[in-house]
Amino acid sequence: MEYIDIRSDTVTPPTREMREAMYRAEVGDDVYGEDPTVIRLENLVAEEMGKEAALFVTSGTMGNQVSVMTHTRRGDEIILEQDSHVYCYEVGGLAYLAGVQAALVKGTDGAMDPADVEGKIRPLNIHFPRTSLICMENTHNRAGGMVIPLDNMMSIHSIGKKHGIPVHLDGARIYNAATYLGVKAKEIARHCDSVNVCLSKGLCAPVGSVIAGSKEFVDRARKFRKMLGGGMRQAGILAAAGIVAVEKMTKDLQKDHDNARLLAEGLNAIDGVSVNLEKVQTNLIMADFSGAGLNGNQVAERLRTHGILINGSPHYVFRFATHHYIEKDHVEKVIDTVNKIVKQ
Amino acid sequence: MEYIDIRSDTVTPPTREMREAMYRAEVGDDVYGEDPTVIRLENLVAEEMGKEAALFVTSGTMGNQVSVMTHTRRGDEIILEQDSHVYCYEVGGLAYLAGVQAALVKGTDGAMDPADVEGKIRPLNIHFPRTSLICMENTHNRAGGMVIPLDNMMSIHSIGKKHGIPVHLDGARIYNAATYLGVKAKEIARHCDSVNVCLSKGLCAPVGSVIAGSKEFVDRARKFRKMLGGGMRQAGILAAAGIVAVEKMTKDLQKDHDNARLLAEGLNAIDGVSVNLEKVQTNLIMADFSGAGLNGNQVAERLRTHGILINGSPHYVFRFATHHYIEKDHVEKVIDTVNKIVKQ
Amino acid sequence: MEYIDIRSDTVTPPTREMREAMYRAEVGDDVYGEDPTVIRLENLVAEEMGKEAALFVTSGTMGNQVSVMTHTRRGDEIILEQDSHVYCYEVGGLAYLAGVQAALVKGTDGAMDPADVEGKIRPLNIHFPRTSLICMENTHNRAGGMVIPLDNMMSIHSIGKKHGIPVHLDGARIYNAATYLGVKAKEIARHCDSVNVCLSKGLCAPVGSVIAGSKEFVDRARKFRKMLGGGMRQAGILAAAGIVAVEKMTKDLQKDHDNARLLAEGLNAIDGVSVNLEKVQTNLIMADFSGAGLNGNQVAERLRTHGILINGSPHYVFRFATHHYIEKDHVEKVIDTVNKIVKQ
Amino acid sequence: MEYIDIRSDTVTPPTREMREAMYRAEVGDDVYGEDPTVIRLENLVAEEMGKEAALFVTSGTMGNQVSVMTHTRRGDEIILEQDSHVYCYEVGGLAYLAGVQAALVKGTDGAMDPADVEGKIRPLNIHFPRTSLICMENTHNRAGGMVIPLDNMMSIHSIGKKHGIPVHLDGARIYNAATYLGVKAKEIARHCDSVNVCLSKGLCAPVGSVIAGSKEFVDRARKFRKMLGGGMRQAGILAAAGIVAVEKMTKDLQKDHDNARLLAEGLNAIDGVSVNLEKVQTNLIMADFSGAGLNGNQVAERLRTHGILINGSPHYVFRFATHHYIEKDHVEKVIDTVNKIVKQ
Repeated sequence: MEYIDIRSDTVTPPTREMREAMYRAEVGDDVYGEDPTVIRLENLVAEEMGKEAALFVTSGTMGNQVSVMTHTRRGDEIILEQDSHVYCYEVGGLAYLAGVQAALVKGTDGAMDPADVEGKIRPLNIHFPRTSLICMENTHNRAGGMVIPLDNMMSIHSIGKKHGIPVHLDGARIYNAATYLGVKAKEIARHCDSVNVCLSKGLCAPVGSVIAGSKEFVDRARKFRKMLGGGMRQAGILAAAGIVAVEKMTKDLQKDHDNARLLAEGLNAIDGVSVNLEKVQTNLIMADFSGAGLNGNQVAERLRTHGILINGSPHYVFRFATHHYIEKDHVEKVIDTVNKIVKQ
Repeated sequence: MEYIDIRSDTVTPPTREMREAMYRAEVGDDVYGEDPTVIRLENLVAEEMGKEAALFVTSGTMGNQVSVMTHTRRGDEIILEQDSHVYCYEVGGLAYLAGVQAALVKGTDGAMDPADVEGKIRPLNIHFPRTSLICMENTHNRAGGMVIPLDNMMSIHSIGKKHGIPVHLDGARIYNAATYLGVKAKEIARHCDSVNVCLSKGLCAPVGSVIAGSKEFVDRARKFRKMLGGGMRQAGILAAAGIVAVEKMTKDLQKDHDNARLLAEGLNAIDGVSVNLEKVQTNLIMADFSGAGLNGNQVAERLRTHGILINGSPHYVFRFATHHYIEKDHVEKVIDTVNKIVKQ
Repeated sequence: MEYIDIRSDTVTPPTREMREAMYRAEVGDDVYGEDPTVIRLENLVAEEMGKEAALFVTSGTMGNQVSVMTHTRRGDEIILEQDSHVYCYEVGGLAYLAGVQAALVKGTDGAMDPADVEGKIRPLNIHFPRTSLICMENTHNRAGGMVIPLDNMMSIHSIGKKHGIPVHLDGARIYNAATYLGVKAKEIARHCDSVNVCLSKGLCAPVGSVIAGSKEFVDRARKFRKMLGGGMRQAGILAAAGIVAVEKMTKDLQKDHDNARLLAEGLNAIDGVSVNLEKVQTNLIMADFSGAGLNGNQVAERLRTHGILINGSPHYVFRFATHHYIEKDHVEKVIDTVNKIVKQ
Repeated sequence: MEYIDIRSDTVTPPTREMREAMYRAEVGDDVYGEDPTVIRLENLVAEEMGKEAALFVTSGTMGNQVSVMTHTRRGDEIILEQDSHVYCYEVGGLAYLAGVQAALVKGTDGAMDPADVEGKIRPLNIHFPRTSLICMENTHNRAGGMVIPLDNMMSIHSIGKKHGIPVHLDGARIYNAATYLGVKAKEIARHCDSVNVCLSKGLCAPVGSVIAGSKEFVDRARKFRKMLGGGMRQAGILAAAGIVAVEKMTKDLQKDHDNARLLAEGLNAIDGVSVNLEKVQTNLIMADFSGAGLNGNQVAERLRTHGILINGSPHYVFRFATHHYIEKDHVEKVIDTVNKIVKQ
């Protein structure tokens, strides 16, 4: 059976154009700094983000963790939104790898109140760790793909600058944010000192992320990447797909957003299901099935028998995701099917 | 000038009886396990806490950190109240030393809702750290010395047992809690798997804490203590004062609580100052000077010129602490002086 | 200019067959465990190594570091040969990542005396870390690609078993060892509990290594891989090349060894250059230019002007490496050129 | 039974003068920086070592580990003699706490060849950790208390300065070295950037060490001390004994050295026992019982029945230690007894 897979945008296989680019990719040993395709990708992303330099890494998790390791010293404290990916979904790497403690701020739709951020900065005191980093996430995954407003980012970045604390942006889906805002990605990335961009989510590359920042940041990050095992040899194979992702796929995200809205409206129209349509901004949807008395595991199980995949969850509110391979007719099929299964 | 020092109960010098006990203490090399006075203290505290074994450590911070290191594996996540001492005041040691991530619960008067605790336990998932410890604090310092009710502790301990997760109690001031509750300390400590007891706060010993738990816990903790540098040679000198602390001073805490209440009532009667008297349970008081428009730093500065010491703070709500060396007439002097300085 | 690149076998780009396999690779989201090509590769390597399970990782460094993290607990001590890759070339990851201390044994041609290994196992003592792992490396890179004899491996493995200490094998070039010994790789890997196999060195895959061990080992390693950022999405692209590497390229290594021997003999015949021919067993050669008064940096610089690349070194003894893309006529060109440049 | 305890100089209880000093000690809360006796001790040791500042810590292990943590960054490599206390006897703290890798040099009588030290400094390379510290130990415990010559120390310190790498001295027994050399301790400590001095070994204080270095070093070390739990409250009790140790006991060590020599000569005269008398420089003796066919465990067991304590060992060569409480007649009794027991 051919499933309609709306669990995540990570399930996207490479496009034909990516496969061809990989097939033809000119490569070299990237540990020696000699892979021309990797270099092209890194320059491309640095340019896109408006940063001095960039570094190709194996995943968003590596991108974020290496960034934290590079900005901080072990024993420091860093400020993050309490539902951020770096804190919630990276296997406790903050404590294991960077050895930093998390100071958590509860955001609204993923956005932290700048005053809350400033309030978490530790004063000098023998009992306190040093605050050495602020992290943001845009779009914000657990907030249902909502976009952090630029003025919020700017305010937090200002606070960072005032206190000499750098800001890292988990921009795994920064191009979704840029599409929603109608700006270039660099207009977002200017409000941070380093940024992590994923190629393998909505952009369809098979593997990889890129972090961008100052030249000094990237030089130091490169060594941490090597230690974590992210120094790959002929990585140009992967970078070739990444270049297609950045050059082509980033132009195509509006379709995913349109389909997400279509899906959100369709779901919201179903009795027992509700979606806050104002919060559907990009390709992720948080739908509430409490009216139907069904949690994510129950819905997932029923949908699976109809050829539709979502991620299970013990909660009534759970996520749907659109991506490059989801077309309008898939959306309609999903809506029809949900309509059926909530009435079972 | 002889100051009235109500900054903290940590400022208490050893009593005369302690000095004499230290002078006469029979000692040996505790790294070889041969200091009879240390052994006596450890047995005494194990007995008091109703645990199999105990270990003398240099401070409450060492006691807590060694306990966390012993219960967890690096990269785990542990659950704590968001204002707990272990998280807030131990220099980020959780991340640096044990290498664990903090999952924070917002408590009410220091007590975590058991449902919130259970909600923070991570399910099995490749993205998640393992939850391996729950920490409580009784009395709770930042909650103004409030006592965590025994049924709350019992509920959380039950959740821990149900999920196979041990519970550590930061009982730095467990004897204040026992005094308030009118129970033996072991009635509190039975609701945890390990406990840290401070000898150097209200109990007046110059240096040291003791952690207690199962024999296996203590055996493993002993090695971590050595690594941190807590293996001391003729530590019986300090343990001798600790024995006096446990045997004598623990009987004397009601006086500190009475004086705290007297002080709280006196402060609360002052125009511009308010204290929630229901929350004054032990020897700590949180007083609110917002009515007087004075923050902790301003009050501290003014009191100092009158021979009274409190800890500065940028906030309007800040702490006063009574202890063994604070008598009723000191309390009266403090009240009189505050009365004066808020009118300046 | 088309260089003859004999710096390392890591410089090998993927073969045409690999490019085609990558182009056609069937893929899925490997973080969900759904990439069929990754699964095929992992099963293949597990079978080849005679182990229960295997895990695809991004590099040999990640393979080794994840293995150490999985076998040990932070604060342990592990035993390694003092010139081993894990200790020398992995950016201090042992201390940063696993948090383990290295107990070093000086080997002979890379092989540790089993008695020395046993002598490094720490007895129980409050002052000592726990010994929790023994590492071997076969072939041994810094010993010039020499092969650790199977009886040496067996003896060390026996010592490990006797003391309950697992053995990890850095088998980055295990197929070179198997080729030299004329045995299947599993005849080597049976003398260890886990093994790291590189696909991207002499086997020409662009990216990746595989670690193999017990099912329990791999399950735990998978989580550490995720934390380090090694959880990749459509990793089947890379795995497809890895399958070709294992199925095809492993049969082809004798050619590299023959060319290495040819090169070694040719170099040794040059006045001022000497190579211990008995130690040339696989595809690596350590050549001594002290007779010519030239260190590796000087030789590298001169060869480069003649279109030949070797790694620079401040020492008189340095490395040459053959690989899939080095043919007999390249070897002859290198010998001729060295002959010239030592006379400059 | 009253044992003659020559296991170590750590077994020394405080002298009567120390007990009196502790009894009378003026104290304050040292976490607030208000303990006058601690401040006196720290100033005294800073002066004695010729350094800007000093910090009282709970043990030699804490002193060394905090020093390493302060000088390095996690993931660095540090250079030590392979039998040094920091590497061998501190429970793997180097890897657990500082997170640094050990680069080991085999010394001669504890002294590292400066060329070997320089050879271990890592060049810049993506594969290498950064070398950030050199450690020395004087006197050298496992070398039998031998003294590292000042010119050796000076040479190594020069290498450090040349490469911008600080030097830490484990001077646990620096006063024994000073006594042997006939110089002030600061003449030794001038060849390092930080030094750890133990008060609780031959100097008889019950607990504690002091580290000394630049003001900046001590400021940063103070925070690490707090994190490890070494921030003690009325620590002046212990510091009072420490002051006696530094002011008085340091003048008395020649007696211990004389007794060690007497003991060494006596043992060496016994058939089956040999001591290299040239290597007996301070209060430690390495005696070789291979001629008698007895290992340290066997000798320890036999001596115990005669009221003499040494540390057991599985080796033929093992340690005897003299100290303040060992008098000439004890030495004679030991020699007589050994004479008997080797003939059993």
